[in-house]
Amino acid sequence: ASQKLLLLPGDGIGPEIMPEVKKVISWFNENGGMSFETEEGLVGGSAYDAHGQSISEEDMAKAMAADAVIFGAVGGPKWDDVPYEVRPEAGLLRLRKDMQLFANLRPAICYPALADASSLKKDIIEGLDILIVRELTGGVYFGEPKEITDLGNGQKRGVDTQVYDTYEIERISKVAFELARTRNNKVTSMEKRNVMKSGVLWNEVVTQTHGNGYQDVELEHMLADAGGMQLVRWPKQFDVIVTDNLFGDMLSDVAAMLTGSLGMLPSASLGAPDEATGKRKALYEPVHGSAPDIAGTGAANPIAMIASFGMALRYSFEEVEAADKLDKAIAVALDKGLRTKDIASEGQATVSTSEMGDAIVAELSAL
Amino acid sequence: ASQKLLLLPGDGIGPEIMPEVKKVISWFNENGGMSFETEEGLVGGSAYDAHGQSISEEDMAKAMAADAVIFGAVGGPKWDDVPYEVRPEAGLLRLRKDMQLFANLRPAICYPALADASSLKKDIIEGLDILIVRELTGGVYFGEPKEITDLGNGQKRGVDTQVYDTYEIERISKVAFELARTRNNKVTSMEKRNVMKSGVLWNEVVTQTHGNGYQDVELEHMLADAGGMQLVRWPKQFDVIVTDNLFGDMLSDVAAMLTGSLGMLPSASLGAPDEATGKRKALYEPVHGSAPDIAGTGAANPIAMIASFGMALRYSFEEVEAADKLDKAIAVALDKGLRTKDIASEGQATVSTSEMGDAIVAELSAL
Ligand SMILES: CC(C)[C@H](C(=O)O)[C@@H](O)C(=O)O
Ligand SMILES: CC(C)[C@H](C(=O)O)[C@@H](O)C(=O)O
Repeated sequence: ASQKLLLLPGDGIGPEIMPEVKKVISWFNENGGMSFETEEGLVGGSAYDAHGQSISEEDMAKAMAADAVIFGAVGGPKWDDVPYEVRPEAGLLRLRKDMQLFANLRPAICYPALADASSLKKDIIEGLDILIVRELTGGVYFGEPKEITDLGNGQKRGVDTQVYDTYEIERISKVAFELARTRNNKVTSMEKRNVMKSGVLWNEVVTQTHGNGYQDVELEHMLADAGGMQLVRWPKQFDVIVTDNLFGDMLSDVAAMLTGSLGMLPSASLGAPDEATGKRKALYEPVHGSAPDIAGTGAANPIAMIASFGMALRYSFEEVEAADKLDKAIAVALDKGLRTKDIASEGQATVSTSEMGDAIVAELSAL
Repeated sequence: ASQKLLLLPGDGIGPEIMPEVKKVISWFNENGGMSFETEEGLVGGSAYDAHGQSISEEDMAKAMAADAVIFGAVGGPKWDDVPYEVRPEAGLLRLRKDMQLFANLRPAICYPALADASSLKKDIIEGLDILIVRELTGGVYFGEPKEITDLGNGQKRGVDTQVYDTYEIERISKVAFELARTRNNKVTSMEKRNVMKSGVLWNEVVTQTHGNGYQDVELEHMLADAGGMQLVRWPKQFDVIVTDNLFGDMLSDVAAMLTGSLGMLPSASLGAPDEATGKRKALYEPVHGSAPDIAGTGAANPIAMIASFGMALRYSFEEVEAADKLDKAIAVALDKGLRTKDIASEGQATVSTSEMGDAIVAELSAL
């Protein structure tokens, strides 16, 4: 049976990097014995322009029915003034919420070929390989009340609510512990329990979950601000970091930038396994944004997008060998010196978005 | 008339670095024509041990009456299990809230003598001088509800509330714009308006405040996650950063670590000028914490603590020349190669906490 992929390129460079993924999908269909069927939809500003919503009900339904959603990026200055409810990001947030994608996996890996591209010293980041497991459907992103009220006298009040229930913390910690077992067996949980009650609960539930069947994994707790510091000071001390939605947003961006490989980093957002079929809903997207400043110039780096499809092979389709092969093809293209502009050192020759995509496909055939 | 200082050493290395500040205060009393009177109090775990509160009513009253509070650091594993309401941090948070210290100034400066100590490449951080202006009495730190409730069925719910009113955002932006005028005239405001309503309001009020009399200052808006990235990528792009309590906590810690000078960085927390006297309530504290791991070893670096008193000279007592002189004395001691353990490079000789304090006092006399 074929697997259904919904492609949502989005805005900015999204529609420029998605075609490169399609080349890779076709390659696996033609040469890898796979059978992916693709459909496309609109999300973000492009969906708003087409029908006044950041994602249509029709595309939402397709996302719910897909075996995996491959997502580009959303947003840009063009939509800075659209109403809050239909801003580009709302489409992404709705996908995460309605598909119940509570587990966001963000690897921060330093590609050897790019160790010099980081603003950090080479010995600090060379060989870096950490995985941030971010809770994605709770916290201050979705808690109510979330509103601006008029207090009169020219005063307004903006309110957001951070909410976490035991089960939400428990299920994300389990994901972290299980992933740690496939890696270096260490989990660092980050919160602000010295200031936030949700942090107190977070700390308590992670500790309990650890005690219930995960004692073989090393568990460490760190305050989120200290965690940000430690990421900068010595990131290699970490293996898996588990944290809430907002801290995960900040910390994963810092971690991504450390590697010097921002245009290279994929992410996976996963739901719970279906009780009957064991299948998880899933969405895969690059960590980088829509980069409106370079959209249309052919300079965008498609690697994070392609590697996101690699994560789909790994986590949605259990095609671990194919995923390894794709990662390898990317590494070989880099080793051969292919660079898009964002990862080129001064004076180094660069290739375009589609040249990079073609090169990776060529390496797939050569491997 | 003499100026009243309340010294609150706190926990961990706090009581070890405070004596070094006292030497500096005495020096200014004896040689600088100043007249500081000091009192001491307890805060944090040491206050809890003494009377079951993280700060006593008596010490709170002294803080309210002081011309400035000089604060060490609080917390440590010893008090990990005390009730939330009396945990060490509660004393600091109460001081901030009751004294209405809404403006937290956190300079992130790379001392030339220490440019090699950073995990970042030298060219990225050499000469770095940014100022983070963090809102300190609002946001998720103090908003209600802030609670854990029992939902039954083994489920609990942790809730924290982020609240910002127009006037709170307005007054902190004014502080940022005014400080920018004394520096490089640029303010970057950071929030998550794409996810948080308080972020939408923050953005709106900062923009309005800018329009009302601060158009001479360059204003830029950045999402807080992108801001964290940009701090790592190219921190010198920033002059003044203004942001809320929680983002300020994270971002200032990242910024502090970038400089490689964590043990060197002071901070000032200021209230509004009194309508009658023009005086601001103020608290000065190092950015680093109580470092329980090195407490009692004589290895603590007293410079951040001493430089915090330097900020008191500057912001509470308008002793700008004296403040400059103190900063100079610190820089000279560093230039001469004096290093506590935290800032020594491999193999470099180190001095103790009190040797560093003595050396800075000696430089004050020599200048
Ligand atoms: C686009 C935005 C809503 C999103 C977030 O804040 O989660 C992004 O920053 C991310 O990290 O995926
Ligand atoms: C000690 C703690 C309550 C405090 C905070 O979170 O504000 C600290 O991290 C700081 O930045 O001053």
